[in-house]
Amino acid sequence: MTPRKIELFVPVITPFASDLSVDTARYVTHAQALLVGGAHGLAPFGTTSEANSLSVTERMAALEALIAGGIDPAQLIPGTGCCAAPDTIALSAHAMQLGCRGVLMLPPFFYKGVSDEGVFDAYAQVIEAVGPNLRVYLYHIPQMSGVPITLPLIKRLITRFGDQIAGLKDSSGSWENTAAVIAAFPQIDTYSASESRIPENVAAGGAGCISASSNVNPRGIRALIDGLNGTDHDALHRQVCAVREIFESMPLVPSIKRTIAVQRGDENFGRVRPPFVAVGQDHADAIARAVHLAGSQGQS
Amino acid sequence: MTPRKIELFVPVITPFASDLSVDTARYVTHAQALLVGGAHGLAPFGTTSEANSLSVTERMAALEALIAGGIDPAQLIPGTGCCAAPDTIALSAHAMQLGCRGVLMLPPFFYKGVSDEGVFDAYAQVIEAVGPNLRVYLYHIPQMSGVPITLPLIKRLITRFGDQIAGLKDSSGSWENTAAVIAAFPQIDTYSASESRIPENVAAGGAGCISASSNVNPRGIRALIDGLNGTDHDALHRQVCAVREIFESMPLVPSIKRTIAVQRGDENFGRVRPPFVAVGQDHADAIARAVHLAGSQGQS
Repeated sequence: MTPRKIELFVPVITPFASDLSVDTARYVTHAQALLVGGAHGLAPFGTTSEANSLSVTERMAALEALIAGGIDPAQLIPGTGCCAAPDTIALSAHAMQLGCRGVLMLPPFFYKGVSDEGVFDAYAQVIEAVGPNLRVYLYHIPQMSGVPITLPLIKRLITRFGDQIAGLKDSSGSWENTAAVIAAFPQIDTYSASESRIPENVAAGGAGCISASSNVNPRGIRALIDGLNGTDHDALHRQVCAVREIFESMPLVPSIKRTIAVQRGDENFGRVRPPFVAVGQDHADAIARAVHLAGSQGQS
Repeated sequence: MTPRKIELFVPVITPFASDLSVDTARYVTHAQALLVGGAHGLAPFGTTSEANSLSVTERMAALEALIAGGIDPAQLIPGTGCCAAPDTIALSAHAMQLGCRGVLMLPPFFYKGVSDEGVFDAYAQVIEAVGPNLRVYLYHIPQMSGVPITLPLIKRLITRFGDQIAGLKDSSGSWENTAAVIAAFPQIDTYSASESRIPENVAAGGAGCISASSNVNPRGIRALIDGLNGTDHDALHRQVCAVREIFESMPLVPSIKRTIAVQRGDENFGRVRPPFVAVGQDHADAIARAVHLAGSQGQS
């Protein structure tokens, strides 16, 4: 078995124009800069991307714009999980037709307290509809979805669909859960949602991270991944943790977008769709600190 | 002020064909029977309708089918609240163009812990986009949506949009909350989600109920509403409570659909979309009891 490649995927924020339509030009510019900044790939349409605030049509157009902008679809794992199976199927088929590496798939998330059997049925319905070329990265974010991806569910999906189950992003915040998934299913790529966990993730056999704050600190996180076995390890880890921690006291997505606006000197990046509210001046000091630590973007 | 009309709106279940497409013929048949059975109107595309498991296109087609089936759009309050504002706007505009009485609108429900300000912005964005003819019934179901419709939020919406805020369905299960909404906002129509609360709802100044189990017991609930001031009041209330309580020990939507299948002698009504799982034989006795108490449907 070849050693697993350790990677950083960025759940790219979605910039909006003043009428709250998707600002495609800024979207592609930011996405390209993240790759130049060291990201191995992008996971557009995640929680940080306000994915569920976008229509199916908007997501398809935005994905096409990334590829038209020269980004290799093999570097893309777009989020496609919606509440309605027809939407999830349409987005997943579209992504695979474009040549994406796979899709990051939320379970249907309106109903709470549903059984593992029901969630299995939901994934199975999509995988069978899209076909054998689909590669699914399961998205475990119970604090938002209300629908956990449990270990028995993962086992059942792998048993049925084999290597069509390509990985899992663990956004639960529980390292114990991440470690349990990596230990039980070493054949899939398991990503942590915080760069602060990269050392443990990699040591345990995980695949790296897909992190909200990689939108503002791609260089720092890439440096940590590249330096995991080097003498600068501790300093690199301290840097990513210091940036990450700043966002823990603020509304995550609005403050990430506001930081990018400051990094790029372009207020337009700060806009959010409801139900988010843009971050105001009350967080200006924290955001200035993040920019100081992570550096600017788009100028270098 | 004229006395408020007390009404039963049914969140119509959505029947599915064997390929899980919407079974339009059975949908219209069941909807028509509910009105014949005494419902004042229908609230299609609620939680019981598996609304969020349907695409925008499917919801529009199903609503058009109800109206083509002879149902007066003035009796319809379809659910239109999605996570993505473009979807909510499209569904709400479509419903009002068809002449519906209003729309029952969930807040965007993926993100949890959002502020009242953000939820206000979400409703305002939709109301402003659809225009002054829109009538919104707010949908408070925090145990599913994770996003409560608080009293300060209702106040702010009414202050800004006046009678465009037409009502609220309280599915929280908290009578204290329903009573507080009715007391604070007597100008809107506030519906309970359980027929067991109709007496308190009406006594407090509420507008009636929008109840899952009215799919199986429309006659009993209508009889209670018509008999609120009569000598049979207690017996009528006991009947609706007895039916309602049966479903409290089963997965609600699958067991409601299974009961309708038995009432109609048509297995097709029992199908559900994932993440729900159809109810099996283990609940057959409970469902037989519900049918015994509520009577059959579609034959009388």
